[in-house]
Amino acid sequence: MQPVKVYADRRSQPSRAVIIFCRVNQIDFEEVTVDLFKSQHLTPEFKKINPMGQVPAIVDGRFKLFESHAILRYLASVFPGVADHWYPSDLFTRAKIESILDWHHSNLRRGAATLVMHTALAPFLGLTTSHEAVKQAEKLVMQSLGVIESVWLKGDAKFLLGIPQPSIADLSLVCEIMQLEILGDEVRDRFLGAHERILVWMDKVKKATSPHFEEAHELLFQVKKARMVQGSSSKAFESSTKLKTASKL
Amino acid sequence: MQPVKVYADRRSQPSRAVIIFCRVNQIDFEEVTVDLFKSQHLTPEFKKINPMGQVPAIVDGRFKLFESHAILRYLASVFPGVADHWYPSDLFTRAKIESILDWHHSNLRRGAATLVMHTALAPFLGLTTSHEAVKQAEKLVMQSLGVIESVWLKGDAKFLLGIPQPSIADLSLVCEIMQLEILGDEVRDRFLGAHERILVWMDKVKKATSPHFEEAHELLFQVKKARMVQGSSSKAFESSTKLKTASKL
Repeated sequence: MQPVKVYADRRSQPSRAVIIFCRVNQIDFEEVTVDLFKSQHLTPEFKKINPMGQVPAIVDGRFKLFESHAILRYLASVFPGVADHWYPSDLFTRAKIESILDWHHSNLRRGAATLVMHTALAPFLGLTTSHEAVKQAEKLVMQSLGVIESVWLKGDAKFLLGIPQPSIADLSLVCEIMQLEILGDEVRDRFLGAHERILVWMDKVKKATSPHFEEAHELLFQVKKARMVQGSSSKAFESSTKLKTASKL
Repeated sequence: MQPVKVYADRRSQPSRAVIIFCRVNQIDFEEVTVDLFKSQHLTPEFKKINPMGQVPAIVDGRFKLFESHAILRYLASVFPGVADHWYPSDLFTRAKIESILDWHHSNLRRGAATLVMHTALAPFLGLTTSHEAVKQAEKLVMQSLGVIESVWLKGDAKFLLGIPQPSIADLSLVCEIMQLEILGDEVRDRFLGAHERILVWMDKVKKATSPHFEEAHELLFQVKKARMVQGSSSKAFESSTKLKTASKL
């Protein structure tokens, strides 16, 4: 059996979610780095893997797939070694997890991705930073964190929906929130400081997926460090060519 | 058995998708209208059904669920009378459908919803119409239509992915595109005129779900007609209170 090829850039949050999922579940996979900052996602070769030009994407034998949630569902379904809690076969629990995954796109993902794009990445994309877009994205991130806490982490819930073990929704959302690290400690704390339950939950997801979680996030912390030391002209953010499609970053 | 309660406003595209799905599959359901223009989605009673204050949402016995894609997956899974093609049990086909459903959120949905919000709805929301937002939304809708046509409707495909019968992805996406009707024939044709394959596909989805498709869209066409006749001050769009959350519209 050929290993599953996972096309990823670890600076992208859904890429990290897929990599961590594979590692934790001992899925035989080969990581193929698609460097977004070298525009490798826009090459004709990569467009044959994912016509959208985004990471992550996978190739399993002759089967190609993109969109991280679809990938996580697929991997959880076809690899019998994956524990049921990641994507429960119980239809009611699964439906609730689907609801969170769907909600994520237009809320936490949209907020966090827009925020990172219009602040940390804007100078390297030739984008004019839109104050209005930043303001709206910040509001959306803040609202989303409130929703996670009040709707899905009620009481002494360890993981989303009060389930005793993590699902693919926990992994996807926590990887998204981790992206705020790139904006620096002060900004991260401004968002997370008031959300004690979110912090406890994130820690539980990290521990449940350790040491793969930390390992997959190493590059993100390198980028963060470089930004903090060198300011916004950090080499870690520079690209020889323009990053034209970064909606997944 | 109690019928499934479907909380919906037929002016919202995901509400229509769920209603059509129930009708086509002869699911015993009771439609509960949540009038977005009367802010019924923001009442404490409705927030007990869906804390996000959005339609559609369902209640099946003691089980509550929101997010239209999650609802469609759930209904297709728990009602044995639903034909397999709507949400195929084959894991490869299902994964491809999931990929389209996930893609939809940040592309076609985001584009179409923002466009309708910043043009037809803006005056009634007290929103300043943002020219930039309209421009970006138009671009996203146009790109999305191009993707649907070139990636999922290749060759002589009848439905998305070349599957001979429609899936929940066909239904969700076509209901989204139908929302453009509200902007008038000229705008609709500007988007769809160059996409012959999209038009043929939409017609196939309509026919496969007839007469329920037409019936569920009647209100949309009434709203469209009222807008066209009376201009943007149309009573059909007026609200006694502000429409505070309309991201699903």
